[in-house]
Amino acid sequence: MTIHAAARVLARSDEAGVATLTLNNPARRNSLSEAMLAELGQELAAIAADPGVRAVVIAAAGPVFSAGHDLKELTARRADADRGRAYFAEIMNRCAAVMQAIVRLPQPVIAEVQGVATAAGCQLVASCDLAVAASTAKFCTPGVTIGLFCSTPMVALSRNVAPKHAMEMLLTGDMVGAEEAQRIGLVNRVVAQERLGEETAALARRLASRSALTLRTGKEAFYRQREMALPDAYAYAAAVMVENMLARDAEEGIGAFLDKREPRWEDR
Amino acid sequence: MTIHAAARVLARSDEAGVATLTLNNPARRNSLSEAMLAELGQELAAIAADPGVRAVVIAAAGPVFSAGHDLKELTARRADADRGRAYFAEIMNRCAAVMQAIVRLPQPVIAEVQGVATAAGCQLVASCDLAVAASTAKFCTPGVTIGLFCSTPMVALSRNVAPKHAMEMLLTGDMVGAEEAQRIGLVNRVVAQERLGEETAALARRLASRSALTLRTGKEAFYRQREMALPDAYAYAAAVMVENMLARDAEEGIGAFLDKREPRWEDR
Amino acid sequence: MTIHAAARVLARSDEAGVATLTLNNPARRNSLSEAMLAELGQELAAIAADPGVRAVVIAAAGPVFSAGHDLKELTARRADADRGRAYFAEIMNRCAAVMQAIVRLPQPVIAEVQGVATAAGCQLVASCDLAVAASTAKFCTPGVTIGLFCSTPMVALSRNVAPKHAMEMLLTGDMVGAEEAQRIGLVNRVVAQERLGEETAALARRLASRSALTLRTGKEAFYRQREMALPDAYAYAAAVMVENMLARDAEEGIGAFLDKREPRWEDR
Repeated sequence: MTIHAAARVLARSDEAGVATLTLNNPARRNSLSEAMLAELGQELAAIAADPGVRAVVIAAAGPVFSAGHDLKELTARRADADRGRAYFAEIMNRCAAVMQAIVRLPQPVIAEVQGVATAAGCQLVASCDLAVAASTAKFCTPGVTIGLFCSTPMVALSRNVAPKHAMEMLLTGDMVGAEEAQRIGLVNRVVAQERLGEETAALARRLASRSALTLRTGKEAFYRQREMALPDAYAYAAAVMVENMLARDAEEGIGAFLDKREPRWEDR
Repeated sequence: MTIHAAARVLARSDEAGVATLTLNNPARRNSLSEAMLAELGQELAAIAADPGVRAVVIAAAGPVFSAGHDLKELTARRADADRGRAYFAEIMNRCAAVMQAIVRLPQPVIAEVQGVATAAGCQLVASCDLAVAASTAKFCTPGVTIGLFCSTPMVALSRNVAPKHAMEMLLTGDMVGAEEAQRIGLVNRVVAQERLGEETAALARRLASRSALTLRTGKEAFYRQREMALPDAYAYAAAVMVENMLARDAEEGIGAFLDKREPRWEDR
Repeated sequence: MTIHAAARVLARSDEAGVATLTLNNPARRNSLSEAMLAELGQELAAIAADPGVRAVVIAAAGPVFSAGHDLKELTARRADADRGRAYFAEIMNRCAAVMQAIVRLPQPVIAEVQGVATAAGCQLVASCDLAVAASTAKFCTPGVTIGLFCSTPMVALSRNVAPKHAMEMLLTGDMVGAEEAQRIGLVNRVVAQERLGEETAALARRLASRSALTLRTGKEAFYRQREMALPDAYAYAAAVMVENMLARDAEEGIGAFLDKREPRWEDR
């Protein structure tokens, strides 16, 4: 296991092809501060280019998963000559870039939610491919209560859950428990708090045992095809399948399956 | 509380920033007749321009929420020289305009469903931002059984629930109970009949206590971004967030939150 | 009842306006082989042109509903001069064409799932308008485990279920039981194995008792409008409703409803 010393508010550890990024600023409720967004962006860029990483977990330390944007940091810039406009735009765009970096990452990303995920913290969970939550985890998009509607979080939220569920979270700001979050599609699995790390790690290890080529082929295709009309989606996905069939890992995987043996991935 | 005398099949009452529109023609099963559509259109237009209204409830009197289009009124026009074509087009487009007026309304709209919501009545529920239903409420799109597929209702329905659920309702015409409607995403909450008015009013009052600017910013952004590709949605939503941050209500709301006091909205 | 002798891996029987296509190659796990795809394509084309068929059931013989593509058949073509590229493309496009033929079929199609539906077999279920499953049925998209991500199955799957549910199936390849499949929107109903045929047939007979014109009008409109922006969807659906109102079956159906008698469909 490697702990990267450069990380300050974000810890990274790697083990057996799984990179775990841990939001590690519990004193500030793991807010997506300028520093946190910068470190997340850097680590995600590094992981995207690292063939040794085959699955990613985004976890958090302390009782809060993430409280979203750092309101003190934002508020301080109201003193700027432009009342903060340029800074707010920079932070919002950086945050949106980090969320999209998760979606575009070649590796699958699992959110491991141990506590409260609020606003952009909830968006972070929604932006991951999969999410495992402790039964004590909670989710909300409470910006409406402080005059700042969770408009960027809703981009991810409304692509995860049905519109009336999204609207209820966005308009009320109410907390949603883990079981309800699972019911509406925001998280995949709910486990006891004390088993959260182990369950998420086991899922990540399973994903990391797959062909990396296959994972990145499929993940990219998933997000691309879902925004296409049906005939376009099929034309695109059929072409993806043909290339996938011709790749060495599919030849090996299908061969191993037909021969009833374990495949050996090339991990390209 | 003000009761608007002009309303005949639609009653309106206003209290503490909540406008309640009550479909009030139980003898005709609150059908979306020409008169009902006209009054709904007028009231929604008036509400859209009224800064004193911060949340809307659409309720109904009698055992039926709404039975949808008025089939007798439509059928009478088969005697027209064009067999009713122009009239049918006018009614369908007016109805679609009313549904879209709900979606475009600056204020959030809650359906309060006390009874059976059928065809365009079900569409009305689906078109609202939120829906609270009595446990005895029922929902269906039964046009298929009378040779007139619920094609306009399905626009709203299929944007609320998963396609196989929508298709089952549309192809069978079967009634769906309130619990099932909640499970599939058509309503948010199910409460006992005798508590329906109170629960909906409490939810509406909570929404009405928010900054009106924030509500209209967020609602508009919700429906706009959900039809965009992900990068466009993020670019748009980030720009919305920046403007929202610079508005007085966000400055006040965030300031109040950081100072641990109640915000005072400007209600613009 | 007519059994079409031409069918070899696909059986067809017709009764009272319901055509049942039965995947009938249990020894090969009802794989969507070249022959199966060809026969499905032919029967669907014949049904599309047959006004006597008003509802379709796709069922399967044996313990497996369908195991998806025939991996042996595909693998054999790796010996081709182009390593199979042209053949893989042909099969993927044929399969996509069959799935889209189901979506475009004028008649509603019900999947009757008695066993395991895997990969393109799961896609077949997702592509049907409705699905009834035995409580012992199972669903999975396990391509990731053999190096061939289920990219074409995910086109249908991701249009049926929420993205995190789709991603979990696609990334893990795990089996999903019938109850879970119903919960996430992949199937409509779960019934005891011994009642599967009867329940599906009863549902199909109910659909077949409708006006064929109304069914095909509504089904076509459903899939077209859902890919449109809201104002376009309403303009289109309103126009569909006007034409539907002017058709003889709507006049008859609405008249019968108002007169409290049974309608007599023209079945155009």
